[in-house]
Amino acid sequence: MKSYKNMSKEELLALKLELEKAYEDAKGKGLNLNMARGKPSAAQLNTVTPLLSALQEDADAVTESGIDCRNYGEMTGIPEAKKLMGDMIGVPAENVIVCGNASLSIMYDTISRSMTFGVNGSTPWAKLDSVKFLCPVPGYDRHFAITELFGIEMINIPMTESGPDMELVKKYVENDEAVKGIWCVPKYSNPQGITYSDDTVRAFASLKPAAKDFRIFWDNAYAVHDLYEEHQDTLLEILSECEKNGNPNMVYEFCSTSKVSYAGAGIAAVASSKENLEWMKKTMTIQTIGYDKMNQLRHVRYYKDIHGIQEQMKKHAALLRPKFEAVLEILDRELTGLEIGTWVKPNGGYFISFDAMEGCAKEIVKKCKEAGVILTGAGATYPYGKDPKDSNIRIAPSFPTPEEMAEATNIFVLCVKLASVEKLLATKA
Amino acid sequence: MKSYKNMSKEELLALKLELEKAYEDAKGKGLNLNMARGKPSAAQLNTVTPLLSALQEDADAVTESGIDCRNYGEMTGIPEAKKLMGDMIGVPAENVIVCGNASLSIMYDTISRSMTFGVNGSTPWAKLDSVKFLCPVPGYDRHFAITELFGIEMINIPMTESGPDMELVKKYVENDEAVKGIWCVPKYSNPQGITYSDDTVRAFASLKPAAKDFRIFWDNAYAVHDLYEEHQDTLLEILSECEKNGNPNMVYEFCSTSKVSYAGAGIAAVASSKENLEWMKKTMTIQTIGYDKMNQLRHVRYYKDIHGIQEQMKKHAALLRPKFEAVLEILDRELTGLEIGTWVKPNGGYFISFDAMEGCAKEIVKKCKEAGVILTGAGATYPYGKDPKDSNIRIAPSFPTPEEMAEATNIFVLCVKLASVEKLLATKA
Repeated sequence: MKSYKNMSKEELLALKLELEKAYEDAKGKGLNLNMARGKPSAAQLNTVTPLLSALQEDADAVTESGIDCRNYGEMTGIPEAKKLMGDMIGVPAENVIVCGNASLSIMYDTISRSMTFGVNGSTPWAKLDSVKFLCPVPGYDRHFAITELFGIEMINIPMTESGPDMELVKKYVENDEAVKGIWCVPKYSNPQGITYSDDTVRAFASLKPAAKDFRIFWDNAYAVHDLYEEHQDTLLEILSECEKNGNPNMVYEFCSTSKVSYAGAGIAAVASSKENLEWMKKTMTIQTIGYDKMNQLRHVRYYKDIHGIQEQMKKHAALLRPKFEAVLEILDRELTGLEIGTWVKPNGGYFISFDAMEGCAKEIVKKCKEAGVILTGAGATYPYGKDPKDSNIRIAPSFPTPEEMAEATNIFVLCVKLASVEKLLATKA
Repeated sequence: MKSYKNMSKEELLALKLELEKAYEDAKGKGLNLNMARGKPSAAQLNTVTPLLSALQEDADAVTESGIDCRNYGEMTGIPEAKKLMGDMIGVPAENVIVCGNASLSIMYDTISRSMTFGVNGSTPWAKLDSVKFLCPVPGYDRHFAITELFGIEMINIPMTESGPDMELVKKYVENDEAVKGIWCVPKYSNPQGITYSDDTVRAFASLKPAAKDFRIFWDNAYAVHDLYEEHQDTLLEILSECEKNGNPNMVYEFCSTSKVSYAGAGIAAVASSKENLEWMKKTMTIQTIGYDKMNQLRHVRYYKDIHGIQEQMKKHAALLRPKFEAVLEILDRELTGLEIGTWVKPNGGYFISFDAMEGCAKEIVKKCKEAGVILTGAGATYPYGKDPKDSNIRIAPSFPTPEEMAEATNIFVLCVKLASVEKLLATKA
């Protein structure tokens, strides 16, 4: 196919007429499709059913070591759940605290604690003149929302195919004491599906932060979320890498079963050095008597061990693959060679990231909406909702059916084409 | 029985010898009993078993209005759970947000939010020179722990038989702008089992706080926790009283099913004015995508409505009464007339509060411990763990069996007698 960029004004005008007609036809269909939400489909949730009846009798509520999960206590979680969550991310159970139903809440609490009480005895961040976080972009809007809420200044770090630009990370972390953290989704990143290379992880582990209370917020949300058995990304385990490099306290790692069991009713955990966990526990013991151990035990009884989780993930993958492929097939077929957008084919995770021509993302999202296809708002993948190039769009294929995804993607590529033609014509005007 | 206070030195010395012999005998038994923990017994938890299987099939996970509780969303809780929790405390569902497994965490979050972000637009408390909370005493140690953690100055307010000393409350709240809150357990208070009178509630509702961001932290933990069907305390509903008095935003009310269903795996809620809830939601929406709706639905399906909860509470009461009565019978029989202690017979709740002679509480707890009976630490019922009279001891009868409670209480009264005799002799020395 001919690149739009090589087209003459006349060619573009002719193409525009054609696309506009197709777009009007599409709008006439009165569609109502949603590619915005990174949530599992009902079909996926239906593969988890036995979890519901994993605990039935009073005796079921007691752990191997005799903890009655119906009662108070065991603030850091039951041993079996620590093992299960630890195995999911490759860290020992003793480095894990299992909490409630959402890793996002643990991250929020971790930021809130650092603001009010400091980090392992450091000055509370709220008392400093300036606190900065590095934000690999595009990234996860809910991370950025937390740091924005607490008034933390966010600095964009471009992503590469192997993770964040580590030269830039190193420059900031090692020279600016106000840089206290970095948000990372190291495996099947949100939204690009990129897994950090071993070199990237090692570069993180060997950082020499200017601030003693600098921490890597390692949101390993998609640790076991492969789409293909034959192409599985692997991520170097960062806690042990940091320890090897004399930085044992530099990482907080977060994970959950939100996209393993139930998005609203899974279990979540934080993993870190013992010293970091001790610091967390100091405030946690005031904040709660304990998290929901029944749900922890329910998960342990159903999955048994990491193999149970892996089997579960194969079922999710079988349902997700056709949806990802429906999107990718249409992007490939319709947009290859046009030079109006790029995208990455991920091996796992929940998203496909699309980069439109500069200055086109908002217009594409708007056009899609008018034709009945809802996308994540343009800019959402950047701090403050500001994509400096107005280029990135996050596509979430998980919730609709493959047929709906195909229909929605056809509208999407149409809108990409039309917005790009309009943009190119405007520059030629 | 003869008052110890009227005994001569010789009588006391003779009594001391006798008590010391009994105490040595008791120590020889090698007991290991615990009256410290306000947690339900296994027998109580065993009355909740059908809750476990309330959700079995995929279709069970969907609410009346079509919410799939397995998935993300509905941050403020499912409508059915709002109704159930609202009915438990007598407020409309629209004033309720249902959260996770612990009201303590909601209280912590509420304090933390006020410190960092202020209250409905007020200056964040952390930015003020002085923030004070009123603490009716004796009270709940975990309340005091939260305010202490955040550096909030706590002021003791004596309890009366009808609630906190409202003259004093009024004086502080209406004259000191630094007074931002008061901790209340208004029904079957922890530890005294006192229920605030209608006059007390009305006095609260008609306060004219000096600080616009003053809030009553109304921890209605024992709203349905009656011990006797024939003697049930009633508590005036404070949200509507405050509204009547032009103070619609003055109260945060907290409740949970921790002592209705499972102590570790119940559901908890906050009730307040719509304006207050809107303010909470502003940060809550950053903190979480939603709480565990499956557990909310599990509770709704099992209890169905407030009548289901009331039936449940009768079962708990039947198991708790003999334990409370075992303690009270022995206190009555062994200590009446001796003038070495006072106690209140509660109609509900989880505790019996005992006031020893001044300066004796620590010694009694120590002596009990040496004889194998664990009590809540003396002072725990006061801010900073400091009981100015060293007098109050909290007895928690719920966890042991009635026989164990009787055995433990026999040791307890022995230690009360011995410590009191020693104290009286010391003053005569």
